[in-house]
Amino acid sequence: MSERALSVLRKKVAARMQYYLKSNFSLNTLAYQLLSDYPTRPGKGIRPTFCLAATASVGGDYNNAINTGTAIELFHNSFLIKDDIVDQSLYRRGDLTLDKKYGLALAANAGDALKILGMSPLIDNLASIGVRKSLQVILEIQEMARRSIEGQITELTYVKENRVDLKPEDYFKICENKTCWYTIIAPCRTGIIIGLDDASSQQLDAITRYAMNVGIAFQITDDTLNLTASQVLYGKEINGDILEGKRTLMLIHVFNSCSPEEKQRISKILETSRDAKTEADVVYVKDLIEKYSAIEYAKKTAKQLATKARVVLLEECDWMTEKRWKNFFLEQTNYLIERER
Amino acid sequence: MSERALSVLRKKVAARMQYYLKSNFSLNTLAYQLLSDYPTRPGKGIRPTFCLAATASVGGDYNNAINTGTAIELFHNSFLIKDDIVDQSLYRRGDLTLDKKYGLALAANAGDALKILGMSPLIDNLASIGVRKSLQVILEIQEMARRSIEGQITELTYVKENRVDLKPEDYFKICENKTCWYTIIAPCRTGIIIGLDDASSQQLDAITRYAMNVGIAFQITDDTLNLTASQVLYGKEINGDILEGKRTLMLIHVFNSCSPEEKQRISKILETSRDAKTEADVVYVKDLIEKYSAIEYAKKTAKQLATKARVVLLEECDWMTEKRWKNFFLEQTNYLIERER
Repeated sequence: MSERALSVLRKKVAARMQYYLKSNFSLNTLAYQLLSDYPTRPGKGIRPTFCLAATASVGGDYNNAINTGTAIELFHNSFLIKDDIVDQSLYRRGDLTLDKKYGLALAANAGDALKILGMSPLIDNLASIGVRKSLQVILEIQEMARRSIEGQITELTYVKENRVDLKPEDYFKICENKTCWYTIIAPCRTGIIIGLDDASSQQLDAITRYAMNVGIAFQITDDTLNLTASQVLYGKEINGDILEGKRTLMLIHVFNSCSPEEKQRISKILETSRDAKTEADVVYVKDLIEKYSAIEYAKKTAKQLATKARVVLLEECDWMTEKRWKNFFLEQTNYLIERER
Repeated sequence: MSERALSVLRKKVAARMQYYLKSNFSLNTLAYQLLSDYPTRPGKGIRPTFCLAATASVGGDYNNAINTGTAIELFHNSFLIKDDIVDQSLYRRGDLTLDKKYGLALAANAGDALKILGMSPLIDNLASIGVRKSLQVILEIQEMARRSIEGQITELTYVKENRVDLKPEDYFKICENKTCWYTIIAPCRTGIIIGLDDASSQQLDAITRYAMNVGIAFQITDDTLNLTASQVLYGKEINGDILEGKRTLMLIHVFNSCSPEEKQRISKILETSRDAKTEADVVYVKDLIEKYSAIEYAKKTAKQLATKARVVLLEECDWMTEKRWKNFFLEQTNYLIERER
C-alpha cells in the first residue's frame, strides 16, 4: 500500500469532516475556527484509514465507510481536546493545545461540539448503508465511546490512588479500553460490518483479536515516544506522562524491578502534583527507567504483540480476500510500532 | 397536576437512569460513584417531566417517553458537569461541584461518560417506539445538542470579546440556543412525536413557539435568582454570573441605560478575570443593576414571555386533548418564573 493511496483515504475523510463543520457552523465565526482547529492539524489519520481499509479488505467499497471514518475521526479530535485539558498538556500536533490557545471554556465546548457533530455522519449512514448496518455501526461506536471513557477513568483512578502495585496485565486492560477500542478495534469492526453482507461473529472476533494486539503495541510505542521522541516530530511535550504520573508499562516494569527504597521514593514523586514535580524528580524516574531497561522491555513487548497481531491476520482472516488491503494491515502493524511520532 | 403526580414521573426517570448507570458500571467503583453523583442530587427534573407530560398531553402513554426523558436528563447532567468546570463554579445542587470534589480530570471524563450513556436509551427506543419515531427522536436530540453548544460558544464569545453593545435580542438568541432547546423545546417536541401517530409540522411549530417563550422566561428567572436567591435554596453560589461576566438580560439593560462613564467602568470590571474581580467590583455592578431597576425589567420581561407562552398553548394547541396534562404546562409556565430555586 503506497503512501499515496493512503493519502487519498485521508483526504476523503478530511473533506467529509469539512463538510460537516461547514454545514453546521458559518465560516468566519469563532465556532468554526475552534472546531476546525485540531481536525486541520496534520495527524496520522490511523482511525479513518483503518476503517476504510477494513471495508476494502473484504471486497467492499470504501466510499461506504467514509461517513463512519469521519465520525470516528471527529470523536477522536473531541477526545484529544478533552485529554489535553485534563492532562494540562501544552502542545498537540506541533501547536499549542486548544485550551492554551482559546481558554478552557471555549475548548471544552468545542470538544463537546465535535462529539455531537460526530453523530451526524452516523445518521447519514442510513441513506448509504441501510438501517440494519447503520444501527450496528452506531452500537459499535457507542461501545467504543463507553470503553474509552471507562479506560480513562481507570487510568485516572490509578494515578489518584497512587498505585505502585500494578502488573503489566493492569496496563494491558487499560490499553484495551482506552486505546484499542477507539483507535483500532472500532475502525476495523465497523469497516468489516460495512464491507461484508453480513459479518459473522467469528470474523468480528478475529479482527478484534488482531486489533487488540496492535492497539496495545501502539499505546506502548506512544508511551516510549513520550520519553524518547524529538519534540518537533512528536508534537507533544516530552516527559508529559511522568509529570502526569501515568502508569505506563515502563513505570510498572520499574515498580516490579526496583528496590523497596527506590519504590518508596518513586511513589513519593508520583503522588506530587504535576506543577510541584521538579526537574530532579523527572530525572530520578528516568534514571530508574534506564537502570531497569524499561524502554527495551516495553519495546520488546510491543514487538511480540505486533507479531501476534500479524499471526491472527495471516492464520484467522482468510476471508480478508483483497491482498492489497490485507497487506495494508500487515504493513501498518509494523509501522505503528516503528514510527518516530 | 399534583406534586405527587409529578413525583411519579421523576421517580420513573430516576429509576431508568439508575438502570443505565448500573448496567454499564459496577457498583462500588469510582466510575459508578462519579457518574451517579449529579443524577442523584435533588433536581427539579424539568426536562424529563416536560417530555413525559407532552406525550401524555396528546393521549399517548408516557411510559413510551421514559427512555427519551432519561436520555435528555443524562445529557443535562453531563452539561452541568461541563458548565461547572468551565464556569469554575463551586456549588451545584447544594454540594461541591464534581470537579471540586474529584478533580478536573475525573469530572471531565464523567461528563463525557454521561453523554455517551445518554445514547443508550435512544437506541433502546427502537424496541419500544419503532424505527421511524426512534430516528426522529435521535435527530431532535442531535439538534438539541448542537444548538446548546452553539449557544454556549456564542455566550462565551461575547464574554471573551467583552461586548458591551448587546441588545436584548442578542440575549434572547443565546437563550434560544443554549437554554430553550434542551430545557423545553426538545423535551416537548420529542414527547409529542412519541405521543402522536404522526406529529405534523404545525403541531411541532406551535409547541416550539410555546417552549421558546417559556425557555427564555426560565433563563431570565435563573439569571435573576443568581443575584437574589438564598444560596441554600439555589444550590449554586450567588453572583457567579457577575464573576463570570455573563451577558445576562440585566447586564444588557444596564449597558443600554447607563452613562458613558458607568459603561466604561463596568466594561473594565467585566474584562477582569474571575479571580481578579474584587468584592467592590461586584458591588459596583450590583449597584448599577439596582439603579436602573434591571431586575424589575428582567422579571417583567419574563412575565410577558410566560403570558405569550400560555396564549400559544390556549390558542394554538387544541390538539393537546388531555386537559389534565395541558394544565400541567400552564401551571409549569407560572412555576418556572415564580420559583425560588
